[in-house]
Amino acid sequence: MIAIVMGSASDYEVMAESTQVLDEFGVFYEVMVTSAHRSPARTLQFVRSVERKGIRAVIVGAGGAAHLAGVVAAHTVIPVIGVPIDSSSLKGLDSLLSTVQMPSGVPVATVAIGKAGAVNAAILAVEILALNDKALARKLREYRKGLAKKVERSDSTLKEARKRPEIRKGS
Amino acid sequence: MIAIVMGSASDYEVMAESTQVLDEFGVFYEVMVTSAHRSPARTLQFVRSVERKGIRAVIVGAGGAAHLAGVVAAHTVIPVIGVPIDSSSLKGLDSLLSTVQMPSGVPVATVAIGKAGAVNAAILAVEILALNDKALARKLREYRKGLAKKVERSDSTLKEARKRPEIRKGS
Amino acid sequence: MIAIVMGSASDYEVMAESTQVLDEFGVFYEVMVTSAHRSPARTLQFVRSVERKGIRAVIVGAGGAAHLAGVVAAHTVIPVIGVPIDSSSLKGLDSLLSTVQMPSGVPVATVAIGKAGAVNAAILAVEILALNDKALARKLREYRKGLAKKVERSDSTLKEARKRPEIRKGS
Amino acid sequence: MIAIVMGSASDYEVMAESTQVLDEFGVFYEVMVTSAHRSPARTLQFVRSVERKGIRAVIVGAGGAAHLAGVVAAHTVIPVIGVPIDSSSLKGLDSLLSTVQMPSGVPVATVAIGKAGAVNAAILAVEILALNDKALARKLREYRKGLAKKVERSDSTLKEARKRPEIRKGS
Amino acid sequence: MIAIVMGSASDYEVMAESTQVLDEFGVFYEVMVTSAHRSPARTLQFVRSVERKGIRAVIVGAGGAAHLAGVVAAHTVIPVIGVPIDSSSLKGLDSLLSTVQMPSGVPVATVAIGKAGAVNAAILAVEILALNDKALARKLREYRKGLAKKVERSDSTLKEARKRPEIRKGS
Amino acid sequence: MIAIVMGSASDYEVMAESTQVLDEFGVFYEVMVTSAHRSPARTLQFVRSVERKGIRAVIVGAGGAAHLAGVVAAHTVIPVIGVPIDSSSLKGLDSLLSTVQMPSGVPVATVAIGKAGAVNAAILAVEILALNDKALARKLREYRKGLAKKVERSDSTLKEARKRPEIRKGS
Amino acid sequence: MIAIVMGSASDYEVMAESTQVLDEFGVFYEVMVTSAHRSPARTLQFVRSVERKGIRAVIVGAGGAAHLAGVVAAHTVIPVIGVPIDSSSLKGLDSLLSTVQMPSGVPVATVAIGKAGAVNAAILAVEILALNDKALARKLREYRKGLAKKVERSDSTLKEARKRPEIRKGS
Amino acid sequence: MIAIVMGSASDYEVMAESTQVLDEFGVFYEVMVTSAHRSPARTLQFVRSVERKGIRAVIVGAGGAAHLAGVVAAHTVIPVIGVPIDSSSLKGLDSLLSTVQMPSGVPVATVAIGKAGAVNAAILAVEILALNDKALARKLREYRKGLAKKVERSDSTLKEARKRPEIRKGS
Repeated sequence: MIAIVMGSASDYEVMAESTQVLDEFGVFYEVMVTSAHRSPARTLQFVRSVERKGIRAVIVGAGGAAHLAGVVAAHTVIPVIGVPIDSSSLKGLDSLLSTVQMPSGVPVATVAIGKAGAVNAAILAVEILALNDKALARKLREYRKGLAKKVERSDSTLKEARKRPEIRKGS
Repeated sequence: MIAIVMGSASDYEVMAESTQVLDEFGVFYEVMVTSAHRSPARTLQFVRSVERKGIRAVIVGAGGAAHLAGVVAAHTVIPVIGVPIDSSSLKGLDSLLSTVQMPSGVPVATVAIGKAGAVNAAILAVEILALNDKALARKLREYRKGLAKKVERSDSTLKEARKRPEIRKGS
Repeated sequence: MIAIVMGSASDYEVMAESTQVLDEFGVFYEVMVTSAHRSPARTLQFVRSVERKGIRAVIVGAGGAAHLAGVVAAHTVIPVIGVPIDSSSLKGLDSLLSTVQMPSGVPVATVAIGKAGAVNAAILAVEILALNDKALARKLREYRKGLAKKVERSDSTLKEARKRPEIRKGS
Repeated sequence: MIAIVMGSASDYEVMAESTQVLDEFGVFYEVMVTSAHRSPARTLQFVRSVERKGIRAVIVGAGGAAHLAGVVAAHTVIPVIGVPIDSSSLKGLDSLLSTVQMPSGVPVATVAIGKAGAVNAAILAVEILALNDKALARKLREYRKGLAKKVERSDSTLKEARKRPEIRKGS
Repeated sequence: MIAIVMGSASDYEVMAESTQVLDEFGVFYEVMVTSAHRSPARTLQFVRSVERKGIRAVIVGAGGAAHLAGVVAAHTVIPVIGVPIDSSSLKGLDSLLSTVQMPSGVPVATVAIGKAGAVNAAILAVEILALNDKALARKLREYRKGLAKKVERSDSTLKEARKRPEIRKGS
Repeated sequence: MIAIVMGSASDYEVMAESTQVLDEFGVFYEVMVTSAHRSPARTLQFVRSVERKGIRAVIVGAGGAAHLAGVVAAHTVIPVIGVPIDSSSLKGLDSLLSTVQMPSGVPVATVAIGKAGAVNAAILAVEILALNDKALARKLREYRKGLAKKVERSDSTLKEARKRPEIRKGS
Repeated sequence: MIAIVMGSASDYEVMAESTQVLDEFGVFYEVMVTSAHRSPARTLQFVRSVERKGIRAVIVGAGGAAHLAGVVAAHTVIPVIGVPIDSSSLKGLDSLLSTVQMPSGVPVATVAIGKAGAVNAAILAVEILALNDKALARKLREYRKGLAKKVERSDSTLKEARKRPEIRKGS
Repeated sequence: MIAIVMGSASDYEVMAESTQVLDEFGVFYEVMVTSAHRSPARTLQFVRSVERKGIRAVIVGAGGAAHLAGVVAAHTVIPVIGVPIDSSSLKGLDSLLSTVQMPSGVPVATVAIGKAGAVNAAILAVEILALNDKALARKLREYRKGLAKKVERSDSTLKEARKRPEIRKGS
């Protein structure tokens, strides 16, 4: 069981990537909107329930002064994965630094800014679960092979397309 | 009554500037070390006591993924003033962005990185108190005049010094 | 009484957020366009009138080399709140640094870049007024509860929406 | 079993923090110096042995164009934790971005730049192991309590010290 | 013979610029999509074939944590030219630093971010080949003269256009 | 006589602002497209003609690795004014640093990135000419008054508009 | 007559470079310490005297939220030259952006951060004066020749030194 | 024959790394100090001699607004390799962007900031020469093996040292 938490419903556009990866791997999860700053009581209530519910990793998406992952990490000893969301004018640099620069003792496993990060947060959660689930580990290896195949296919497609002059020009 | 809170005792080297300004203005304050991430329960206990104790502004110093000011701001409606502390290799850019980029609805009044910020956090707190304390407002105006006089004096000193050739060369 | 000052009429798109918050809280304010650099005499005239008019906080929005908040702060001892506006190609990093990095002795209470900052500048002003106005303090607590409820509602809406497959995909 | 890998022996000054945390938790680990760019064959040989050896998380420290964590992540489906090391003139911004901005499908769990990151990489590894090791989970909770107690103690020490005037001045 | 490698088919929009320059100079090349992280085996297979195939320079385009050029450089002693691609929210700063900040001993010849870089990567490859190919060197000098002429022509066009008032206004 | 030089005809969209200001002040100028890197001979020819032609300031607009202003400055002792143009993915940060960070002995008077900079480059040139041209100095003072009046007018317009509710909301 | 103004006496370490250049060229100047924020009245008094005193360019050094050059520029139509001083933890990036990003209509001629900038501010001032002073123009050309000769001499010295093995190693 | 050019004799501390690598590979080179801005005539004279002298690659080190590599590249069609030098307060970010962001048509092969870059510039030059020199190609492969061996040795040394407790602690 994984939890996917985000600071605002508008972050779902990015965090839906995490849900799709977990769906693909058949991993259960719950989705929650709660804000470190605007609904702190609700956030606390959530973080206190995390271990009791048997959640094994929390994926947290947040933008700006992105404190939500840190708040969750401060209250639990299960892995917390932070997805910096590019929702301010600083293009996610603020979210990245607010998420990754945690003080000694309380880690947040930070992934890339935006959608690539939301995908990778879910993969990382699956990697953690797969340490004790051989079937899941096998699926992960299949997924990786799938990535490699997709690269191969896009290589073939490009080579094919380059035979047509208008594609050759790259636009 | 003002509270001065910092995430780590090592931040006191910077935050002592706030205490000195408040001492100078005769404003009472308490000093506290508590971490958003390493002592979250203690931090919550503190933020819940703030309004009851009659604290009228909280000055918060923190470095790195500086969440402490935001945590305090999330739990109280009195003004929270954030001092970004330059304690990581990114020279306070991380602390600044983590402190200032708060989401809509929960402000942190952010001042400059480091010692100038710690001084200014205290001045800002005094400015807030002075809105309802004419004696304090008068002291603030005196303080400002003092700043201007110090500039004038340093101007005279420099002009005097420039008459001696070794100073003239600037080193 | 609050003043909302901005360097250019085009900043009103952002600063209107401040006016709406103050309207919501029933706090009186005046709105003014004046530039630190293009209308310095007018700006001085304004800053000199601030204390006489009984203004208790000045909210200042400015972009680029955003000096307006600093100019106001240099001439008054009431709290000055700076909103960095993202109007140059550097995406507000210039406005943020020009607003927040004030020298020791003359603070500007800086909030987030752009609209979130304009909302928060007004909330901060209300927080300052509420220190001596219990009704306003009560409204602030209601406002905060409203923020938390909005988060809850957006959580419910998202959970509801996720039952429909096209939303589940996040776009 | 954890592996701690670093791109250069000079990174050990930082990465020793990871070894100390694992020693403290009684978690076995191996330490290895291998470079993504200067010893690629050796790096490959290592990454291919990871799963066979039963390693359950790889902690990777690297500076500059920090590719080592990404290379390890590309060849294994166990969690890879990246510690950006501040060894170039850009103060770790290069290492952070090179480590965290991984493409969709291949995550690196990135922690803070430098020593705080090296500590947190080890804590994160312990958190992952603790999901299936109750004794370790208990130790993690004790460790967290220890962090909180250390904060409390440093608070007391500061309050005590502030009674002496020379400390009060912050230097 | 030049190889043009890119981490994703979507990079072709940028890297097509390299192919057009090489076409213009009549230099043979192969185009390949392979990812350092998603298809590492394929990437290794490619880099091991480079010298055997008689490839004399490898042009590599990649975005985000752009490791592909470094991986190629780690396995060969022929010149590797890196084109940082602006495909993340950080606008290519991440790709630039990941590509250029290589450790001592394993260079990547890095060019500008995006299309200008893709053009220049190809020109640089031609410059390298031209060291031992007088016809190519002559073509390069012609190309440079062409650049200068294009500048002159655009100068004339602008001067001509400025005689019409609507152009004079610059939009 | 002023010269306005730009590295590429596409920079004219920005640099037209300089021409309009000079037109407004009745100052003669020539416009030229020449590139430091693509037409170096032409650029040299131009810079060598500058003093002979009686040009009294050169305004230079360039983007990316913006060397053109520096090249002009290296060959003449009349004032060179640099306008960093935002034409790369780094949003003008590269152009700004390439223009302003000149070595000791060879200044480039750098103004803001983009159109505001192009306006200001022309104003700066007029200010320099006005030191020995009282009529021009009078016009500059009128221009400044005009700026202040425009601020006042936009203030009135905003105040008027705010009486209508749809404007009040800022969009 | 040139004025050299700085925001704090501690800036003199940098700004002494400007005085030395002007001494070298035999150009008269006055030196003044005055702060935009801490002594605004004094600053205004100064800027209002500038034109009356016959000052022909004002060189302004300031750090942090460096508004002083902008304040001077707002009140006069003679050229204002800004030297960003590296006195905060952000290494002068804040001073540079605060100085250079002036709004349309009010230019500050910005030079490099720190000592190179202080030298260049003075050279720029001399260049402006030299437009109407042939003797000064001649001196400037001599100065430039001197720079070139110094480069030549340092080239010879290096070549000589490289004959000794310990220098050859670069330390 | 390689040329190593630098903008200032003080850059030799960094650029000596290039000379040492070339010495090690037995590649002839000349060393020259010349500045794009302070000795432009001398620089031009040099760049015009490059092709005639049979130089096959120019390594250029420069700091700040680092134009020297671009100036050389503008006048020759042989490969130009740029080493950004960290000599300003911006820590080489200015030199990197000034060197790498060249316009379409005129490449500079940019390597890492500082000493690692100076080493790599020389290696890159050797790689270019080695395309037509089998002995040199063999030496390059030996050099790479040497790098890998050094990594292995430092791994052994670290493992050995870790047996002693004081080293184990990382300092």
